[in-house]
Amino acid sequence: MEEEKKGLSRREFLKVGAVAAGVIAAGEVLGTGSLNLLSRGGKASAGEAAAPAWPWPYKKLDPEAVQKAGYNAYYEGGCMYGAAKAIIVALQTQAGYPFTTIPIDIFRYGEGGMVGWGTVCGALNGSAAAITLVSGKADYGKLVNELMGWYTQEPFPSKKHDQYAKFPGQVQNACGSPLCHVSVTEWCKKSGAKVTDPERLDRCAKLTGDVAARAVELLNAQADGKFAAGYKPSDLFGGCMGCHVGKTSALNNVQGKMNCVQCHEPHKL
Amino acid sequence: MEEEKKGLSRREFLKVGAVAAGVIAAGEVLGTGSLNLLSRGGKASAGEAAAPAWPWPYKKLDPEAVQKAGYNAYYEGGCMYGAAKAIIVALQTQAGYPFTTIPIDIFRYGEGGMVGWGTVCGALNGSAAAITLVSGKADYGKLVNELMGWYTQEPFPSKKHDQYAKFPGQVQNACGSPLCHVSVTEWCKKSGAKVTDPERLDRCAKLTGDVAARAVELLNAQADGKFAAGYKPSDLFGGCMGCHVGKTSALNNVQGKMNCVQCHEPHKL
Repeated sequence: MEEEKKGLSRREFLKVGAVAAGVIAAGEVLGTGSLNLLSRGGKASAGEAAAPAWPWPYKKLDPEAVQKAGYNAYYEGGCMYGAAKAIIVALQTQAGYPFTTIPIDIFRYGEGGMVGWGTVCGALNGSAAAITLVSGKADYGKLVNELMGWYTQEPFPSKKHDQYAKFPGQVQNACGSPLCHVSVTEWCKKSGAKVTDPERLDRCAKLTGDVAARAVELLNAQADGKFAAGYKPSDLFGGCMGCHVGKTSALNNVQGKMNCVQCHEPHKL
Repeated sequence: MEEEKKGLSRREFLKVGAVAAGVIAAGEVLGTGSLNLLSRGGKASAGEAAAPAWPWPYKKLDPEAVQKAGYNAYYEGGCMYGAAKAIIVALQTQAGYPFTTIPIDIFRYGEGGMVGWGTVCGALNGSAAAITLVSGKADYGKLVNELMGWYTQEPFPSKKHDQYAKFPGQVQNACGSPLCHVSVTEWCKKSGAKVTDPERLDRCAKLTGDVAARAVELLNAQADGKFAAGYKPSDLFGGCMGCHVGKTSALNNVQGKMNCVQCHEPHKL
């Protein structure tokens, strides 16, 4: 064995490692990640540094700080990256490992509703990822659902960024949809901005912060045991759902929770 | 200092750790992740076990194995989870660390187009995340764009799963959209299945594998320097783009690349 040739048996290494894991608290050089691995010793299998069990422990965050961080991070990597980074970096600051192991760049593809396609808003996509990371099976669905419903009814962008934003005091619009296509296009219609104008980018930077901040509010409420779902579909399409969506619906022939009448003519009953 | 009380100075620990990092090659117990941390010693800052620089190195994968893995993983955690897991676990098997540090459960929220909302297909969302993880800034956009365009035109599900699927020989449909809402609803219309039927779930399990496999084909082509974009919008809406989408378009007033006429009446020019 290689380690025997060099005069240190694996048994000795592990023994030292186990002691060391117990005595070095801060891990300024090795990082808590490696200490964590040392301390759980036998759990990692061959060639693996495994992610800790999901969900990762949430620590309450400051929504206002995340709101500003989301605005700034949008300009680095777009809306999904911006929202995910704002929340995950805040968790890194609060809790360090394992949040430090997340490669934030993985979220870049979500910009513009997935590389510009206009599907789901990237701020929702990135916030939902962060929510899921720190929420168990019983919780992430209701938190993400609430965030998405809120998004459809919220007039974006908020005024909260006006102290530092490039374009303060912008027109606000609630678009009725979680889709980037609808959100951006309707805001451009209302504001008169072109899609590629710097004003539109700034609107989406603000929205990125707004959505990440709302995600943090929901997570904080959940952490306090005070989360209560508030979103309800509007009457415009809430009635469609009863017949078309879900196992107990008469037709059970439509997948989704989006506003039907934005794309479909309502029919008479 | 805490470690001095216990009789092992940090200096001693680090010395032993540095030697050990050099002599234990396989890391059967600690894993290459912790060895990596040990060996890069001074690089990790206070309390951090940082993710390696992005993009992470890609190793070519077997699309057929990923296709089957995606099918199976769908039944564990849905479409986004299934697609991401199929690719990332294959990378874990090929390359180990750092792919082993990804908490795959983070992708659960993408099911049904984000917790059932019917926005972007989760198989696209999860595959795009995996593509982005291993593609640099210059590449992920074109690969994800190609995957999304291909998705809109591909008749799902493929026949590739028929040896092991619960429901072999299903009806196929190309839905023209990257949205879960359109993909699932149109397939149900064509097949006669209800949205919550086990047949529909099996269709989406297959699709999950199909999309992950296509992502791997694109990544493999890119790795070989042979990637060539093939997707073009259909004539049904390709003409809309010239006036409405992009900086050089006359109106520059629409965000997105989706099929316009699925929701909007085409107008005369």
